[in-house]
Amino acid sequence: MSHPSPTQTRDWFALPEGIIYLDGNSLGPLPRKAADRIAAAVTDEWGGMLITGWNKAGWMEMPARLGDRIGRLIGAPAGSTVLGDTLSIKVFQALAASLSLRPDRKVILSDSGNFPSDLYIAQGLIGSLGKGHELRVVAPEELGGAIDEDVAALLVTEVDYRTGRRHDMAELTRRAHEAGALAIWDLAHSAGAVPVDVGRGGADFAVGCTYKFLNGGPGAPAFIHVAPCHADAARPALAGWLGHDAPFAFEPEYRPGAGVARMRVGTPPVLQMAALEAALDIWDQVDMEVLHHRRIALSERFIEAVEATCPGLRLASPRDAQARGAQVSFHHPQGYAVMQALIAEGVIGDFRAPDILRFGITPLYIGEEGIDRAAAILSRILGSRRWDDPAFHARNAVT
Amino acid sequence: MSHPSPTQTRDWFALPEGIIYLDGNSLGPLPRKAADRIAAAVTDEWGGMLITGWNKAGWMEMPARLGDRIGRLIGAPAGSTVLGDTLSIKVFQALAASLSLRPDRKVILSDSGNFPSDLYIAQGLIGSLGKGHELRVVAPEELGGAIDEDVAALLVTEVDYRTGRRHDMAELTRRAHEAGALAIWDLAHSAGAVPVDVGRGGADFAVGCTYKFLNGGPGAPAFIHVAPCHADAARPALAGWLGHDAPFAFEPEYRPGAGVARMRVGTPPVLQMAALEAALDIWDQVDMEVLHHRRIALSERFIEAVEATCPGLRLASPRDAQARGAQVSFHHPQGYAVMQALIAEGVIGDFRAPDILRFGITPLYIGEEGIDRAAAILSRILGSRRWDDPAFHARNAVT
Repeated sequence: MSHPSPTQTRDWFALPEGIIYLDGNSLGPLPRKAADRIAAAVTDEWGGMLITGWNKAGWMEMPARLGDRIGRLIGAPAGSTVLGDTLSIKVFQALAASLSLRPDRKVILSDSGNFPSDLYIAQGLIGSLGKGHELRVVAPEELGGAIDEDVAALLVTEVDYRTGRRHDMAELTRRAHEAGALAIWDLAHSAGAVPVDVGRGGADFAVGCTYKFLNGGPGAPAFIHVAPCHADAARPALAGWLGHDAPFAFEPEYRPGAGVARMRVGTPPVLQMAALEAALDIWDQVDMEVLHHRRIALSERFIEAVEATCPGLRLASPRDAQARGAQVSFHHPQGYAVMQALIAEGVIGDFRAPDILRFGITPLYIGEEGIDRAAAILSRILGSRRWDDPAFHARNAVT
Repeated sequence: MSHPSPTQTRDWFALPEGIIYLDGNSLGPLPRKAADRIAAAVTDEWGGMLITGWNKAGWMEMPARLGDRIGRLIGAPAGSTVLGDTLSIKVFQALAASLSLRPDRKVILSDSGNFPSDLYIAQGLIGSLGKGHELRVVAPEELGGAIDEDVAALLVTEVDYRTGRRHDMAELTRRAHEAGALAIWDLAHSAGAVPVDVGRGGADFAVGCTYKFLNGGPGAPAFIHVAPCHADAARPALAGWLGHDAPFAFEPEYRPGAGVARMRVGTPPVLQMAALEAALDIWDQVDMEVLHHRRIALSERFIEAVEATCPGLRLASPRDAQARGAQVSFHHPQGYAVMQALIAEGVIGDFRAPDILRFGITPLYIGEEGIDRAAAILSRILGSRRWDDPAFHARNAVT
């Protein structure tokens, strides 16, 4: 196919006039067709079909059907990915299953660049198990060397939420497997952002959210992929009825469903899934490799412009494009104030303590013109040093 | 206030023409205003505010704000109820917290009338803890006598999903407390169905879903109430970042939030919450006691009509209205076929194996005329015995 142009893909989104949106790494924008799809789910399906929507509108199968569509974006075979719950819950499921598959090992290995919720979930699981497990957290660059035969599971987010630094999934997974450990990959900042291949990468479990680069909407459900070799062995810790082999038989004993189906828990969020479904249609019309190259070109352009015109900003992301996700971050001692000033001028990125400005580079709806304008506005703001003015802080205190 | 009439409250819902909807115990119908509210959440908030919706549109506070609105319907004090996830997840949280509060006890006590997912979740938790806990399941009428000092937690659904039989929450909780056990009440078929008072009832934990009698929409989030005396002691097993005391400080160590806030886990489903918010507006305009009396009158009317005109049906629900939830169920050996025939004629109830026809009696949108018509159609169907005709089954095989 001839690939849609940047102007064409941008037009698929309902972006407010005058806004340069560089925060798709936090919440993707509204795909125009999502509004219609949700309205149909509300009025025609919920309103018109009522309870029969579970069958007639296919609600019950959506977690598997949409899971497979996400699976295609991350290199997972059909039938190995399912939707539901939140990413924290999916991390819990993957981790609990991993510990049950490695009962003689006591270490969960992660790194300090992981998103805190992943670490919290591990801490909560360890606390509630009370069996002497340990969460070992090392610096991202020390992960490979820290894998030993005590490690039950490596729990890693591929792309660092602050710096955009990207781990080498295949290499770390290989080392984990060599040591007999399992590898759980959190793809929150990877799915829809960069080419991912969990199959080739060998991931035992992969989890992620759909409201960032996949544009599924605020609070869109998470996904979990379980490698086929584990799918029938992983015992669900969250043994909800929709993961039962026969949910509507209402048997008194839990029998896990076949394969990844057992990772379903409770009633899925139909309206959120409808939004996500429309968002996923976009991915059928684009080629991730093409987007990947556009993203790298845009990221390089942004870094160059910033480094040439924005003194005081220091690149926090890896300089090597292949070692980055879809995000470019900079340090600035007044980072919070700089970001507030940017947002006030319609350039929306975000800030992470202590001093990081994050910019999501999403070629689906950001082009060269937006990148240039964002850099120019950033340069002007840095020149004005308006955060030295107390009135600026008063105006922007709430945002 | 003068209470809205049945015709007025019915008009708040977008019910399809000609349908008599007796399945609000499974999925409540669409409140007319929910469609507008969701459209605003999609277009104005997600589309227009993008990431700033978390603050500007108050998304982040919705789990607590809507939780309090549900709290008012179940007699929970402000600040003790929070929304999120699915009911199965909330059962897991309540149960895990209960076991951690009663570390020397090994029995979870439930009854065979409980919804299977609650039992499955208990089985899954027991399996993953591996500490010799036992799920003891007795007949509903034997629950009170089965509470002893081995019991860590009573896990009971107040209203039986098949028969509508209602437990005495205050009495069973009193007995549990006498034995030093905690009481977890699943209000799936109670909230919005019958007057509930978890405060007076003494429940330690209460959980429920919002897509049945509360009309929050397919896949609407669940709620959890934690009695204030436990709220700061209950250690979350699902230690997600939004239950952290300072989620946006991104600290490496989990510190549970104050009170029930720690029962939040991950990013809440904003679009589902918007639908639920519109559905909850309805509850500000009605009096549960008035609805309760209307429901009893309608239920009695239905039972009388069925018993007078529908030979072969046998009441499965308690005859005493005070011992029932908002549901009337009957046994019939051809129950599945009878229900298919009813649905084909626009009377929507549902079927639960092996032989139960369930009818949700929801005075918000069901009146005397609907009850009479449903009973008349049921009578006619039973007279025709059309399920003896193979063509009938062929026609209705998919529904």
